[in-house]
Amino acid sequence: MDERLRRQLDFSLEIDKEKNVFRQTHLSGGGRNENDAEHAWHMAVMAYVLREYANEEIDIAKVMLMCLIHDIVEIDAGDTYAYDSENQKTRRDREDRAKERIFTLLPDDQKQELTALFDEFEEYETPESKFAHAMDNLQPLMLNNANGGSDWRAHNVSATQVYSRQKKTKLGSEKLFEVIDGIIRDNIRRKNLRNE
Amino acid sequence: MDERLRRQLDFSLEIDKEKNVFRQTHLSGGGRNENDAEHAWHMAVMAYVLREYANEEIDIAKVMLMCLIHDIVEIDAGDTYAYDSENQKTRRDREDRAKERIFTLLPDDQKQELTALFDEFEEYETPESKFAHAMDNLQPLMLNNANGGSDWRAHNVSATQVYSRQKKTKLGSEKLFEVIDGIIRDNIRRKNLRNE
Repeated sequence: MDERLRRQLDFSLEIDKEKNVFRQTHLSGGGRNENDAEHAWHMAVMAYVLREYANEEIDIAKVMLMCLIHDIVEIDAGDTYAYDSENQKTRRDREDRAKERIFTLLPDDQKQELTALFDEFEEYETPESKFAHAMDNLQPLMLNNANGGSDWRAHNVSATQVYSRQKKTKLGSEKLFEVIDGIIRDNIRRKNLRNE
Repeated sequence: MDERLRRQLDFSLEIDKEKNVFRQTHLSGGGRNENDAEHAWHMAVMAYVLREYANEEIDIAKVMLMCLIHDIVEIDAGDTYAYDSENQKTRRDREDRAKERIFTLLPDDQKQELTALFDEFEEYETPESKFAHAMDNLQPLMLNNANGGSDWRAHNVSATQVYSRQKKTKLGSEKLFEVIDGIIRDNIRRKNLRNE
């Protein structure tokens, strides 16, 4: 087998480990914790189904690929809970090291391509990045809401914290932010979110 | 919220259940059984990374979406093991009913679109369908090989059975079939596959 194909297959096998990175979010129906691979799959399908609500014109294939790879670095760096401010401080360093190791498994042209796409997601500037982030925000909120806000209650999360993250959803989709705003208000009323 | 968006969100929440449909394949490193959502995610990323090996020109966005949705019907129909000939007989009926129920959650235009894409995958005729099937065949074989062929041994699978499925991989990618052929031969040698 030639070196290029061998590297591509090594990468393909390595990313299997993303299925062992568990998040704080629980599956609907009060299920187990969700893992990163499932989360990425869910985001990519939702991006396609909800693409008409992007504020700007988007390349949906790029958004989907961005969704699919955006958490690959967590194979090494682990999941950092959105509302864990202490671990958020070291997140970037941990993820940079992981990005270098994991994408280096690929042939160099593909390493460059996927690293650039990963960085584009992180930088939150292009229409595709903003819409992919809207999915990254909406998907766990939808599951948590379906579970009666149990993840927020378990972590004693405040409405301010959720708004602080979700207000950026508006950059990707005004329409989907309205949905999110409704869900947050409802969960404040039901005392699933602290209202300071 | 308008009816169209409500339907899109209902569908988005419903497909969360795909994460509870477990397959016979085990994760690498001798891990737990894999579920359909993880499998679909893995196939879609692999399709992108390995797209240069498709026999024919392909629309990679279409292949990725096909990979992402190809097992959604198993939410109702369950996973049918590739080498379980008894349950394969009823698979089509079970999946047709599931397809109708699940895609009907969507607005009608999206129901038609995703149903057509699902059917295109099943019909195995277009370049995109053939390459998506190549991923559907290569991905579990890669994991099983990484686990020393334990899934084949557990089900007493023969080389003839594996070739019967995998020979169609050649329709999507001659090059990736060569890889698969090498893996099968190696597992016959190591007695992980029965050689009748």
